[in-house]
Parts: sequence; C-alpha cells; structure tokens
Amino acid sequence: MAVPVFSRAHVEAAVTPERALDAVRAAFVAYASGEWTMPPKVYVPAYPAGDFRAMPALGGGHALLKWVTSFPGNPSHGLPTVTGVVLLSDASNGMLTAALDAGAVTALRTGAAAVLAAETLGRDGSAAVIGAGVNGRAVVRTFVARGRHVLLYDVDAERARAAAEELDAEAVSREEALAADAVVTVTPGRDLVFTEGSLQAGQHVSLMGADGPGKAEIAVEEMARARLFCDDWEQASHNGDLVHGVEAGRVAPDDVTQLGDVLAGTAEGRRSNDEITAFDSTGLAIQDLAIALAALERADELDLPLIDL
Amino acid sequence: MAVPVFSRAHVEAAVTPERALDAVRAAFVAYASGEWTMPPKVYVPAYPAGDFRAMPALGGGHALLKWVTSFPGNPSHGLPTVTGVVLLSDASNGMLTAALDAGAVTALRTGAAAVLAAETLGRDGSAAVIGAGVNGRAVVRTFVARGRHVLLYDVDAERARAAAEELDAEAVSREEALAADAVVTVTPGRDLVFTEGSLQAGQHVSLMGADGPGKAEIAVEEMARARLFCDDWEQASHNGDLVHGVEAGRVAPDDVTQLGDVLAGTAEGRRSNDEITAFDSTGLAIQDLAIALAALERADELDLPLIDL
Repeated sequence: MAVPVFSRAHVEAAVTPERALDAVRAAFVAYASGEWTMPPKVYVPAYPAGDFRAMPALGGGHALLKWVTSFPGNPSHGLPTVTGVVLLSDASNGMLTAALDAGAVTALRTGAAAVLAAETLGRDGSAAVIGAGVNGRAVVRTFVARGRHVLLYDVDAERARAAAEELDAEAVSREEALAADAVVTVTPGRDLVFTEGSLQAGQHVSLMGADGPGKAEIAVEEMARARLFCDDWEQASHNGDLVHGVEAGRVAPDDVTQLGDVLAGTAEGRRSNDEITAFDSTGLAIQDLAIALAALERADELDLPLIDL
Repeated sequence: MAVPVFSRAHVEAAVTPERALDAVRAAFVAYASGEWTMPPKVYVPAYPAGDFRAMPALGGGHALLKWVTSFPGNPSHGLPTVTGVVLLSDASNGMLTAALDAGAVTALRTGAAAVLAAETLGRDGSAAVIGAGVNGRAVVRTFVARGRHVLLYDVDAERARAAAEELDAEAVSREEALAADAVVTVTPGRDLVFTEGSLQAGQHVSLMGADGPGKAEIAVEEMARARLFCDDWEQASHNGDLVHGVEAGRVAPDDVTQLGDVLAGTAEGRRSNDEITAFDSTGLAIQDLAIALAALERADELDLPLIDL
C-alpha cells in the first residue's frame, strides 16, 4: 500500500494558522460532545534526557496516533526538542491513510490552542508570547494571522529579536510581556513565570509549557487568584500545571472548566472584566487529529512522496 | 531527517524465523529482569469493525511504538486483518531511527513466541498449528525452521492445503491437529478450540488468538486442567484468554507463570511428562522491539527507501 508522507514543509503548506485555529476549535467542541474520543496519552520515560508520548485519538472517520518526543536538551546539540510522526488511519478498515511530521503538527495545534483560549477567555488588547522556540513562534504566527500585534520575549534576547523580525512581532522586555492583556507562556517549564501576586486584574494567561513531570509555569498560590481552565481535566490534573495545585490540595475538579465546554456553550467563560483567567494546556491528540485531517484535505494539491509498506 | 522504511519484504529479508526466535527469547528475559520496560498497550476501539492498538516499549537504547490494527472482517474485502507501522526511535535523543511494516513484524514475533513457548513448555514430538492466516503461517514457518514436522488445520480446507504445500507442512483434519503434542491456535478467537475435557495428558497449547474483548480459544473449565503460563500477566489478565478465568474467579495471579520468568530461570516450567501446559499470548511490544532491532542490524545490507520528515 502506498501512503502519502507530509514533511514539515508539506504540513505548513497544507494548513495555515487560521485554518488550524478553526479546525482545533471544532475538535474541542466535538470532544466536549463525546463525538471525538481520546484515551489518555501514554508516556515512555527516557529521563533525564527526555520522554516519548504515544497519543491516540478517534474522530472524523479516522484514528490517529502521534508518537512524539520532548527532549529539552536537544537544541544545544542541533536537534529538535519535539520530533516524531503522526499516523492517520481509516477507522472503518484500519488502513493507513497518511504519515505526517509530528513537530509541524504539534506547533500548529499548540499555536491554535493558545490563541483560541486567549480569544475565548481573554479581553481584547495587547498579546504577548514568552518563549521563542518552535512552538512559541507558532503562537506568534497564529496571533499575527488573527490580526493581533504581538509582544515577544525570550531569555535569549537575540533569538527573540530574530523571531520578532521574521514574524512581524515586537521584541520586548520580560516586564513588558508580563503586562499584556493576554500572555502565552511557551517555556520549558523549569522556572515559574507567574509567581505569587504577579498576575494583574483582567489578565488572561495561556500556559502551554508544563506537560510532564516536574514542569510548571505558575505558582500554586497564584492559581488561587485565577479562574482556572484546561484542555482536558484528566491530562492537566496529571501532567499540567494543575497537578501541583491538585497535589497541594488547593485545586479540585469543580474549580476547573474545560475549554471545550466553554466553546460548546455548556460552561461559562470569562465572567467579568477584572477576572483573571488561566488556561492550562497539556496538548491533546484530538487537536493533532484536527490538523492531520485538515492537511489530508489538501493532499491532492501537494506533490507528496509515497511510502510503500 | 531521512529515515529508512522497511516494507514487509524488507522485514522478511532482514529477519529469519530463527533469528526472530532468538531475539524474542532475549527480549522476554530482558523484560523479566526489568532491563526492558513496557507501558500497557492502549486500545482505540472502532467496533464492530475492529480496533487499533498503540504499543510502546523501551530497551536496547531505543523506544518503540507499534500502531497496529485488528479488523477481522478485512480479508473478505481483500484487506489485511493486521496492518500498521512500527516506529523505532533513539532513546538518547528521541530521533526517529526507522519505520517498519507492522504486519510483518507482528507475524515474525507471533511465530517466535508460539514456538518459543512450545519448545520451553512442551514435550518433543508432533507439532500442530490451527489457523492458516498470516500469523498462523508465520508459526508454521518458525516450527519448520526449527526442524519440526508441522500438522496444519484451517476451517478453510483449501487455504490449509495451499499453505501446507507452500510451507512444507502437512494439512490434516481438526482431530489430527488437536491430538499433537504441541498445538498452537491462531484463530480469530470467536469459537472455543479447547472445550471442557478436550486436552490430553502431556499436551502443550500456545493460545495466540485471544487478544481483545470477547475473544477466547479455551474454555474456563479447561484452564483448570492445565498449568497456566502467559506472556505478561497484566495484558493477559485483561485481554487474553485468562480474562475469562479471572472474571469467573477461577484464575488468580499465583496460578499463572510468565514465560520470561521460566526463560530467565526464576520460575519452573513443565514439571512432569503428563502435565498439561497452556501459554496465553496477547503479544508484547517488547517482542516487536526485538524484531525491529534485529531488522535494523541488517539495514546496511538492504536497499531501503528513505522518507524525509
């Protein structure tokens, strides 16, 4: 059987950031209604170097498996932090439909989820991104595609400057970024970005970095000052920022609203202009499925290489 | 990055049945000692048509993910029951090392496990295989490679005759197959092969077919007559033949010995000439890892196509 393969360039040619945002929004709604389903992701630990994740999902007549890594030390050796393959199969007979570069799919859906949460839960106004790695740049690209002016900060000032120039954003200081109406953090999760008392009335934060053991971008004390949202309670309470609040006995299931429920209209989003909203993202396989299906729609327009299995 | 792809033909050219048996034996021992590890396989149900399984494993400096199906009705539409991809990654940095046809890897490791169990737990003497599908033929091939004369039975007499001719086995009646010293069942698991009272003193059976909900090849009552072995207690007690004995309260963990512990010398195998032994196989990702690593050793000798991701 001959299966088309989408390289990073093919994925990016097939799916624009705006298309990704629409597809991911629909996926969150389909997941909230039970139409799309997803077993929990499985971690294969290879610490301290990193870990592998096997992420299955079912929806849209297809089954998806993403095999993807997080090796934070890789960039210092010229290798990507996030790499792997997305496999898409026909749910009616199991036959493989496509293989896609996992890094490109992950970046698109991470940018889409961060901006979707900021638009759904945040106020209009300034938008900032903290972290100019692959996924941080994808968030910038998505905000820009939605017509937002983006402030960008990275601990590596030169990396922030280069990314801002490439993506039509504005490199700013850490303080300026933290003062924006919507702040998206896309850091390795080794150091807290939001310590106790740092969030301002009315701010929204999309916390994209904490998705595994020991990672956090917000202090447990600061969670108590925000209304809490997440992509999926099961994942976020085990591997997101929320796990630290749960372990400390400060966060219970009833304290947290799933983004999909807000998008589906079955749960409340922001309730006042002064409310602080925090979205804890761990990354869902249903988001990857949304991007993969969007790419597949464009397969005929691309000159895709085939693999024979 | 350019990643080599092993088609079915490449896998079969790279790994002989004998090499597969040695590799799978070593994998069982490495898993028993804790050197190789494996999270439980994850099922993605797409019933009634079939299901998908995501099977990760870690060992030999690599992480593996097999994305593989079981769609029992596929052959009537000219499609394979078992299909998918094995992804092999470097555990030190997460980079993808190879992709392999999952059907070919599955057949090799299923044949290896069935014969390994028969050699370890069974007596010398006649060997029979029930079921002449892809995996049943792989068992025949492995027995033949080990110098055993093989009796073959299938409900489809013509399929059994053709497979026997191709593989140098002997097509026999169901009764003749069931009377062999070692019987390997590789059926869809819809009908019991071993009903109450059917097993004979001293027989060994390798039960390869029951690996998911509702499947069984042996009656619960008949399990009580045999010493029970399995590939992995966790998997077999949830999705193998054993699940039915566990649910009926007739089989407890202490009643079942893992094959790897026998191979490692930490548990007893067959204890007498008259003992009936039954091996419940659900198929482990560490077996797939053994085959994938064996194939990788031969990569340089094959003219493998590359995919760019």
